[in-house]
Amino acid sequence: MKLFEPLNIGGMVIPNRIMVPAMVTHLCKEDGVVTQDTIARYVRYASGGAGLIIVEAMAIHQVKSGPLLRISDDRYVPGLRELVDRVHGTSDSKIVPQIIHFLKVARTGWRQTADMLSIPEIDQIVEQFGDAVARAREAGFDGAELHSAHAYTLSSFLSRTNPRTDEYGGQTLEGRLRLIGRVMENARRKAGVDFPIGIRFNVEEFIKNGYTVVDSKRIAVRLAEFGASYLSLSAGGKFEDAQHTPGQVLYPYNGYSGDRCMPGDWLPRALHAGLGAEVKSHLLANGHKTPVAVAGKLSDPQDAERLVAEGKVDIVGIARGLLADPDWPAKVRRGELERIVQCDYCNVCKALDGTHRTVICALWPQGTLQAPADDPAIQAPQWGPAGPGLTATPKESRVELKWPKAAGASHYEVYRAEENGDPEMLDAVKVTFWVDNTVLGGHRYSYFVRPCAVSGRPGARTDTVAVDVPAPSYLSPA
Amino acid sequence: MKLFEPLNIGGMVIPNRIMVPAMVTHLCKEDGVVTQDTIARYVRYASGGAGLIIVEAMAIHQVKSGPLLRISDDRYVPGLRELVDRVHGTSDSKIVPQIIHFLKVARTGWRQTADMLSIPEIDQIVEQFGDAVARAREAGFDGAELHSAHAYTLSSFLSRTNPRTDEYGGQTLEGRLRLIGRVMENARRKAGVDFPIGIRFNVEEFIKNGYTVVDSKRIAVRLAEFGASYLSLSAGGKFEDAQHTPGQVLYPYNGYSGDRCMPGDWLPRALHAGLGAEVKSHLLANGHKTPVAVAGKLSDPQDAERLVAEGKVDIVGIARGLLADPDWPAKVRRGELERIVQCDYCNVCKALDGTHRTVICALWPQGTLQAPADDPAIQAPQWGPAGPGLTATPKESRVELKWPKAAGASHYEVYRAEENGDPEMLDAVKVTFWVDNTVLGGHRYSYFVRPCAVSGRPGARTDTVAVDVPAPSYLSPA
Repeated sequence: MKLFEPLNIGGMVIPNRIMVPAMVTHLCKEDGVVTQDTIARYVRYASGGAGLIIVEAMAIHQVKSGPLLRISDDRYVPGLRELVDRVHGTSDSKIVPQIIHFLKVARTGWRQTADMLSIPEIDQIVEQFGDAVARAREAGFDGAELHSAHAYTLSSFLSRTNPRTDEYGGQTLEGRLRLIGRVMENARRKAGVDFPIGIRFNVEEFIKNGYTVVDSKRIAVRLAEFGASYLSLSAGGKFEDAQHTPGQVLYPYNGYSGDRCMPGDWLPRALHAGLGAEVKSHLLANGHKTPVAVAGKLSDPQDAERLVAEGKVDIVGIARGLLADPDWPAKVRRGELERIVQCDYCNVCKALDGTHRTVICALWPQGTLQAPADDPAIQAPQWGPAGPGLTATPKESRVELKWPKAAGASHYEVYRAEENGDPEMLDAVKVTFWVDNTVLGGHRYSYFVRPCAVSGRPGARTDTVAVDVPAPSYLSPA
Repeated sequence: MKLFEPLNIGGMVIPNRIMVPAMVTHLCKEDGVVTQDTIARYVRYASGGAGLIIVEAMAIHQVKSGPLLRISDDRYVPGLRELVDRVHGTSDSKIVPQIIHFLKVARTGWRQTADMLSIPEIDQIVEQFGDAVARAREAGFDGAELHSAHAYTLSSFLSRTNPRTDEYGGQTLEGRLRLIGRVMENARRKAGVDFPIGIRFNVEEFIKNGYTVVDSKRIAVRLAEFGASYLSLSAGGKFEDAQHTPGQVLYPYNGYSGDRCMPGDWLPRALHAGLGAEVKSHLLANGHKTPVAVAGKLSDPQDAERLVAEGKVDIVGIARGLLADPDWPAKVRRGELERIVQCDYCNVCKALDGTHRTVICALWPQGTLQAPADDPAIQAPQWGPAGPGLTATPKESRVELKWPKAAGASHYEVYRAEENGDPEMLDAVKVTFWVDNTVLGGHRYSYFVRPCAVSGRPGARTDTVAVDVPAPSYLSPA
């Protein structure tokens, strides 16, 4: 598989094309110091075999915030070094910190915007980014990633809605690119030109008046000219359409742009792959071989392999899929697809992040802080002596599924085929019932359920049960 | 060209695959009666050769509103019949009214939502739709189109955000489809099964929690089962993300979903073509040959032809492109592409609609209510004796273009090529200067300007002027 071919990213050789994008964990405290839980999270990704692990965003400045890693002072370096060493001691995964500056937000809904920064404040941000990247190198990281996506400072300058009227905005693309350009130059100067620096930015903003792939193709060319070692494409996640809950700080992932950034189960698979391919192809047409990563519901191994094999992008970013199962890379490499704990995009992880609680996966055993180890001693779930006994009953525009408990099952995957189509996993649940709200009367649906043990080992699937949903009276007009 | 092959839509044979989607004109008064200006607008599309003309939305109910056509009573039939007869007397274009029900909106920002309707009110809507479609047949229209897109009643029921908890919602897809199903059945009963009825609906809602192509594929199958004669795909245009201006009623096209519905110049060309192709292919896979139309920046003739020739969709909807130049079909058929008045997506038409003013195209001669006739006596614009004299000057992240007036020029098209790429039209202006805000320092851009007479006859283009934009100091780090 092309997915498992190594790639040289400006001197950093990643063993495969699978990236863990930066995901907030809230496993540290307000002091921003790496904890043993933080380390355990990333060691787990390393043991699962991801080629490139991006550590959750760490702040370059000392502003007050929730539990968030920091790289804003030399005193954070020892903790970061321990994190790096532990990951490097586990596998050949490469580890890179995402480095962030963000503007102020208040519980009233007020937020600082790009036009409120003075030139000295901008100069300070440039210096802080450079110092942070130098610290990343000092801590032993394999590279650094500048966070220029979503709702944060670099992205707000890059935005088509950047309200500044001076040389850092001024309604020109070049103005919007000035801050990231100066940051990149300073980081190179302070950390050395041989230290890989990637940039994450939005392929589309998905907000009113926001930029689209028309601009992001040009932005990508410029970032490649800056010498970005790789470009990692995300989307949305903006304050502009965030919904304010009184008394809470704005969460930039709860508007439509947030739907696009962390798409739930009603959004299509691989939803930004086409945009990523447009950017990659535009870069190539302009003579830039800069590796491109894209993320967004890419946890289907066939989707991931196809994207890389066809050269649409170089690296696939799989966030929630690898949170659910850090062993995804190892299992895919061994061809054990049926053993993957498949993310069902329920977004419990997103809800936890949105309320500043520790981010875990709802499919992990209750009360655990980390994905369970893939222990070979774990047995496959077993149905009781009465057998699996799935029932599927049509009820008022719905189909209700029920099945018995299987011994040793951690959760159950629910599959459906429409008419004569292929079965698709629709959900993964810990209970023994499920309701299908997306059936059409007059159609036949076939269901089966598969029990999975901790870490994904599957039991025997139930029989397939077909249901003919009654057609509504108005379907066949006279 | 495949674009000019006729298509049989449930007995209505359209002479080509070019559709004028419904566009509000505000050419009638508050009484909702067809005016001579209304007729002139649609006759103009007919004389230009569009295969299928959808007349702007007309209301099935008597609720107060701005200037909006009505089909809510038999007294509107004579005016509508005159409109139909005049169009039929002009060309073989087919003409179909878009038929709409909308909920109440107030200047306070309050709006009625789907869950506020009682069952008797829903029953009344079903009857009103049926009566309106019967009137459309009586008036001589070739078919009718149910408006189930954007911010209006049928769409609000179809929406994934439909808040009802009864059988017309209830968090099920089947529930969301119940109203359109009953409307379709009643319309068929009242207007006859041999009267073509199309349905326009959103391929994606582009709002928080809104439906995506995952649902619209299923919706399309169900609408085909209802016997829809064609499906016309639009996108966005929702109240949910509309921005309220105090004292004004909500305008559902001024949020992000409005950007998607009537995309401005910063959004990509043919931006919903891929989604349309997904729906078409899903219909075919389910045995439905229902013709599919899609709209969204499709005024490039090559884009339009490719979509139809490759079978991605059957019909292309071109709204603003045909507003700018109703002779687009005739000119494309004759291969006179350089004579098309090309829409630059400036959205003056959208701004006029948003403020309830008469909708015209900014490229038409000032003060005219209709697109000018393609008069062969109109001469091509002529540069003065000093020649065209284009200058292009780089200035602080911008390039400023200036050129002299050309005699007989109605407007000027501005073209740019990036590096060695192909020239693209970036704008069309009535003045003799233009500023390019999207250049990158360190790159070469080539510009030329072409003067166009009324109705598009082009003059000689200027020489091509190349500009090397200076690179910013931070571009080449040490």
